[in-house]
Amino acid sequence: MANSKYEYVKREFEFHRHLPASNWIVVRIDGCHFHRFSELHAFEKPNDDRALRLMNACATSMLEKFPDIVIAYGVSDEYSFVFREKTEFYKRRESKNISLCVSYFTIVYGMKWKDFFPNNDLKEPPYFDGRVVCYPNINTIRDYLAWRQVDCHINNQYNTCFWALVKSGKTEKEAHQALKGTSSKDKNKLLLQQFQVNYNDEPAMFRKGSTVYRDKVKTDDCGNPIKRTREAITVSNFDLIGPEFWENHQYILGEAS
Amino acid sequence: MANSKYEYVKREFEFHRHLPASNWIVVRIDGCHFHRFSELHAFEKPNDDRALRLMNACATSMLEKFPDIVIAYGVSDEYSFVFREKTEFYKRRESKNISLCVSYFTIVYGMKWKDFFPNNDLKEPPYFDGRVVCYPNINTIRDYLAWRQVDCHINNQYNTCFWALVKSGKTEKEAHQALKGTSSKDKNKLLLQQFQVNYNDEPAMFRKGSTVYRDKVKTDDCGNPIKRTREAITVSNFDLIGPEFWENHQYILGEAS
Amino acid sequence: MANSKYEYVKREFEFHRHLPASNWIVVRIDGCHFHRFSELHAFEKPNDDRALRLMNACATSMLEKFPDIVIAYGVSDEYSFVFREKTEFYKRRESKNISLCVSYFTIVYGMKWKDFFPNNDLKEPPYFDGRVVCYPNINTIRDYLAWRQVDCHINNQYNTCFWALVKSGKTEKEAHQALKGTSSKDKNKLLLQQFQVNYNDEPAMFRKGSTVYRDKVKTDDCGNPIKRTREAITVSNFDLIGPEFWENHQYILGEAS
Amino acid sequence: MANSKYEYVKREFEFHRHLPASNWIVVRIDGCHFHRFSELHAFEKPNDDRALRLMNACATSMLEKFPDIVIAYGVSDEYSFVFREKTEFYKRRESKNISLCVSYFTIVYGMKWKDFFPNNDLKEPPYFDGRVVCYPNINTIRDYLAWRQVDCHINNQYNTCFWALVKSGKTEKEAHQALKGTSSKDKNKLLLQQFQVNYNDEPAMFRKGSTVYRDKVKTDDCGNPIKRTREAITVSNFDLIGPEFWENHQYILGEAS
Repeated sequence: MANSKYEYVKREFEFHRHLPASNWIVVRIDGCHFHRFSELHAFEKPNDDRALRLMNACATSMLEKFPDIVIAYGVSDEYSFVFREKTEFYKRRESKNISLCVSYFTIVYGMKWKDFFPNNDLKEPPYFDGRVVCYPNINTIRDYLAWRQVDCHINNQYNTCFWALVKSGKTEKEAHQALKGTSSKDKNKLLLQQFQVNYNDEPAMFRKGSTVYRDKVKTDDCGNPIKRTREAITVSNFDLIGPEFWENHQYILGEAS
Repeated sequence: MANSKYEYVKREFEFHRHLPASNWIVVRIDGCHFHRFSELHAFEKPNDDRALRLMNACATSMLEKFPDIVIAYGVSDEYSFVFREKTEFYKRRESKNISLCVSYFTIVYGMKWKDFFPNNDLKEPPYFDGRVVCYPNINTIRDYLAWRQVDCHINNQYNTCFWALVKSGKTEKEAHQALKGTSSKDKNKLLLQQFQVNYNDEPAMFRKGSTVYRDKVKTDDCGNPIKRTREAITVSNFDLIGPEFWENHQYILGEAS
Repeated sequence: MANSKYEYVKREFEFHRHLPASNWIVVRIDGCHFHRFSELHAFEKPNDDRALRLMNACATSMLEKFPDIVIAYGVSDEYSFVFREKTEFYKRRESKNISLCVSYFTIVYGMKWKDFFPNNDLKEPPYFDGRVVCYPNINTIRDYLAWRQVDCHINNQYNTCFWALVKSGKTEKEAHQALKGTSSKDKNKLLLQQFQVNYNDEPAMFRKGSTVYRDKVKTDDCGNPIKRTREAITVSNFDLIGPEFWENHQYILGEAS
Repeated sequence: MANSKYEYVKREFEFHRHLPASNWIVVRIDGCHFHRFSELHAFEKPNDDRALRLMNACATSMLEKFPDIVIAYGVSDEYSFVFREKTEFYKRRESKNISLCVSYFTIVYGMKWKDFFPNNDLKEPPYFDGRVVCYPNINTIRDYLAWRQVDCHINNQYNTCFWALVKSGKTEKEAHQALKGTSSKDKNKLLLQQFQVNYNDEPAMFRKGSTVYRDKVKTDDCGNPIKRTREAITVSNFDLIGPEFWENHQYILGEAS
């Protein structure tokens, strides 16, 4: 507000970095020490349905709060938020982007916890780190989302095998050893032969992660048909690697039809 | 974990910025839309004792959580955290510093809310922005803290007058008008003559803001004397502008005695 | 080479910034104190043909030296060099890009000086500043070049009028005064009516600046037709604002034909 | 000058980075492909006296040109320039610092070449890269200079041995092999026993590199005593690692005496 002789500490040392224009901005948040946090709160392994749905609920709140987020993708304790290419959210200031996203996500996580874990008090504060990355065009932003979904698949397939082995009596060390060097095919075979589990029948939320976006719907909240389409924030578990989702939702990234 | 053809999106686009060594790192967080938030939750004006003590409790948690924070200073809905010059907190990665501080502060704010506002549910999520600034030596980091405390004084004196006028029947517009161009002395006179308030008798927490640091104490938690000094995280409302606090606490910034 | 206890000064303080992938990289260099330099070396006003051709010769050397520069555009004492979107020139390290371009341009300017000013020794060292800017797609990189060419037009038209007025006897101050607030049309009228100069008949190099690129030619150096097209670094004074140049040279920016 | 619809390319994409205040700024330049350049111009090995004196002459010109450079240190084809802590050279803009230093150094190198190599035309353009690093206090900037001088020692001792071996008839490969794993002591012994060379008798310029600074002198250019000290830019080959040079020249870094 006022000028003092100390103001030089701002003028000479505090710099604002702005993210370059015409780039898709991704803010990715990631649970900090969630290995410990998930044990402390007895998350089910390899996937805790309640914990994932809590993450999705937080992501939904993010899209409600920040209209410039066009799509979000989450898996495990991480979530990526994609701001549209032309966003002027806080003039594209980097520290504002990171801090506001991570802060809002965190508080909603805390406030919605009880909805998903009604019998389970928070034993320690959940918190997240965040980073920001820019992508200059549709190819690279789509490849970014594909990268996260491939990671989801690889990790989930591994973890599904790992916990099946552990639950069957192996130590964690033995389970890791058994999986060392196995291919994707090997893992599917192991699940089928040892545990009668067809990996592809696992819940899509576990295998594909969750995508949050604004769907164009032609029904009202009660399912009755309406004339004009409206946007409804939707959580799905689609494949983002192939072209199908994008062909059906070209408006998300503003692609020419 | 595994390599996919999409990994280039990380390698070619995600850069980690590291803060320069031998610099004090300040992370300053600031409430986002707290004007609205404070009205929605009926904060007292110009200062809400509960809200300030909640901020101080969060800052105390920060020092408990992050040992490399040597001092924190807060006023209103902002708080500055000073990491020691040589900290290797997340290898001094800028986005880690900002995001983890703002996320942890935010969640603690949410979790401790009920302790300070027991009859007052959160009506909307409180959240904060954050920024990071580096200061290369003791002079500049002390000037940084002085800058925030001068700001505290100027704002608080103004707000004290403003709300006294408003509570006495003036509109907000009239109150601003009455204070336009007044000096610090004028404001003290106004408080004394119109409202019989001696500004210097106002609570130190309002006038000076709050400082959180590790005090060296020679008593145990019950006040009994102990042989070795121990560190206790302490909230005070000292003056940080003059030399006295620093002379008495040289160990905080590691100054040679 | 070897490790010493001082190596921390590099490890902890020297950071390499990499320019984001999939962006066109522009390095723009600009003469430093060239107003003074041009007077000291008696450059003709408003345009010195020799000085411009020297700049063009330096730019040609740049394209010969650095194959990843796909096009360069120059006017007055500035030149912009566009590196192709995917260039891995020094791993896209920002300081390498700036310093190597400006250093190489500068030394060639010094070494070729005599070719263009044979009777004119260098009286002081010519030197240049440099900066780097990234553009994420073809639209923005074309707009960048258009921006420089519009600037060229505006400045050159102004300078043409200004020096015509000065040469006709006005003081520099009077000339500025006479041009204050005039439109582009006004200036053309002034040139035509007072000086019988049709601005559009001025040399294209003055009006349009110079573009250096690799042309595809079907003749050898002697003008004899050859079977395969070859690339020849070419200086031209085309319009870069309209679509024509780009339609005829789609290969420069790698546009699909 | 004027506004056009293309100006957004500057506003939205061109960012100026400012170096943090209260830091010593080092610009280090380094010859690009000088291995090849030195062979092409028949530099003597391991050290070419003319080439080193040319580098020193360029550094001297730098201190004449830029008063905010307080000291420079050079070895082989590299030179470091230290700007004073408080410099406001081009508002501490990073790209200005790098580009202007490297450009000015380069052109002076080209223009002074003939003074040091009168019978030796430039066969190709010499050029340099540049980088900028900030140091927050006297300890770190002195350690920076010590780091470069330790590097000078290690490289020069190695090269002195290497070229002695090669000149005595070994192939380059054999010479490298002979030196592999040898200590500093081993190398001195090798020089003494095989070549009757006492390394410490080698010229100080080769062993210590060159330091350029403003000396305070009490004589005029002819050596006659004068009353007031004046500053004279001086090249020396002092040791910068120990305290002596700094104790005798405290004014260079502005240390309290």
